Amino acid sequence: MHIALIGATGTIGTAVNRQLKDRGHTVSALSRSTNPALSIEDHASIVNALESLEQIDAVAVASGSTPFKPLPELSRTDFAAALGNKALGQIDIAQTAVSILPEGGSITLISGILANVPVTQGTTASVANAAIEAYVRSAAGLLPRGIRINAISPSVLTESLDGYAPFFPGISPVDADDVAAAYVRSIEGAETGQVITVL
Amino acid sequence: MHIALIGATGTIGTAVNRQLKDRGHTVSALSRSTNPALSIEDHASIVNALESLEQIDAVAVASGSTPFKPLPELSRTDFAAALGNKALGQIDIAQTAVSILPEGGSITLISGILANVPVTQGTTASVANAAIEAYVRSAAGLLPRGIRINAISPSVLTESLDGYAPFFPGISPVDADDVAAAYVRSIEGAETGQVITVL
Ligand SMILES: NC(=O)c1ccc[n+]([C@@H]2O[C@H](COP(=O)([O-])OP(=O)(O)OC[C@H]3O[C@@H](n4cnc5c(N)ncnc54)[C@H](OP(=O)(O)O)[C@@H]3O)[C@@H](O)[C@H]2O)c1
Ligand SMILES: NC(=O)c1ccc[n+]([C@@H]2O[C@H](COP(=O)([O-])OP(=O)(O)OC[C@H]3O[C@@H](n4cnc5c(N)ncnc54)[C@H](OP(=O)(O)O)[C@@H]3O)[C@@H](O)[C@H]2O)c1
Repeated sequence: MHIALIGATGTIGTAVNRQLKDRGHTVSALSRSTNPALSIEDHASIVNALESLEQIDAVAVASGSTPFKPLPELSRTDFAAALGNKALGQIDIAQTAVSILPEGGSITLISGILANVPVTQGTTASVANAAIEAYVRSAAGLLPRGIRINAISPSVLTESLDGYAPFFPGISPVDADDVAAAYVRSIEGAETGQVITVL
Repeated sequence: MHIALIGATGTIGTAVNRQLKDRGHTVSALSRSTNPALSIEDHASIVNALESLEQIDAVAVASGSTPFKPLPELSRTDFAAALGNKALGQIDIAQTAVSILPEGGSITLISGILANVPVTQGTTASVANAAIEAYVRSAAGLLPRGIRINAISPSVLTESLDGYAPFFPGISPVDADDVAAAYVRSIEGAETGQVITVL
């Protein structure tokens, strides 16, 4: 398959990219640093970058950021930033991908354990992740041409503990390779409308 | 108790307002048409209106709109509108209320059955409702002074079937009075971090 992978150079994206290539797929990496550039905050760049590729069979996202701050410090702007980047960005990619993908194509988005688990500085991530998961649940039965859609919801990554450990007290980390396997499951399998947790 | 009720003139708000008054509470109604006006889209109006009231014991919201359209017609702007109004608006009210409410105060937000149930034209509502519910789950354990927070998640209202029936096929409606009872349960009870469904 030919897979467009947004965020292929990140902690998760690197493992997804490697595993997809190991399985014989062709991966087109897209991010703010590629040519053409794709920023999940910029609708025109999403359309332009996805339309620039040869026929793709799947779109997968491994990007998205949300501000980590204590609840009392979170402004409306912080919640808008989290939703505008991680949630609206991925929803926009999915909505754009639908018109490009062929029969049986797939879309794989990224949420995260904080959708369901409250942690001290994680409220904007909880909100954005839940929005993505609801989009996936709602869109799955409405997509044309048998296109499937799932979200991967990992715990904190072992590879990210240096920066994130304080935000995930008592929460067991998972390896990037196990998260990448969940992307493979979404892309090569038959699930749709699912939140595939990696815990 | 003295309760600030945003959207007191709507289908749900009218029933909540009546039931709260019947139970001996004082209700301060706020919306775009009150003086001072409160628009859930305008942070400054939220702060100004809530700070203009005598000491309140609870804040309850019965407002919020999301565009109903078939999935292929939904643009990034439509999702941003739904999140900017119903989700960010209520989150902003909650974040503002926290600094005003006394020990043991409460916040009651509104989501809706579409958070979990996909329907043909309901994807932006699903996304906004899930974002609100995630905020409630995440914030509950982080609020100071024993302040509680819950979301009410009703099915479509009997009173709204004229306009909404086509969007809720096979989904049993509920009466506004039963939704209002859920607000009473949130405000007078001891629950926090809950999604109180009315199905
Ligand atoms: N790491 C974890 O522990 C963990 C756990 C659960 C969920 N997640 C979620 O997984 C996703 C990826 O996390 P990660 O830790 O792998 O991220 P990361 O290491 O920071 O990598 C981010 C990737 O996304 C790209 N990117 C950044 N901003 C972008 C934008 N505006 N538009 C397009 N691409 C952009 C980056 O490339 P450029 O800089 O070239 O744009 C990079 O390839 C995030 O949504 C995160 O919330 C992560
Ligand atoms: N009706 C249903 O079947 C149903 C089912 C599930 C969930 N819900 C949810 O329940 C909430 C209320 O629904 P409803 O049907 O009762 O609404 P509604 O009848 O349309 O009433 C809306 C109320 O909110 C106020 N309002 C509108 N825009 C506002 C804004 N920007 N800022 C502040 N107040 C505003 C209106 O007063 P002004 O015009 O004076 O501002 C009015 O009091 C919505 O979030 C809806 O999604 C409804």
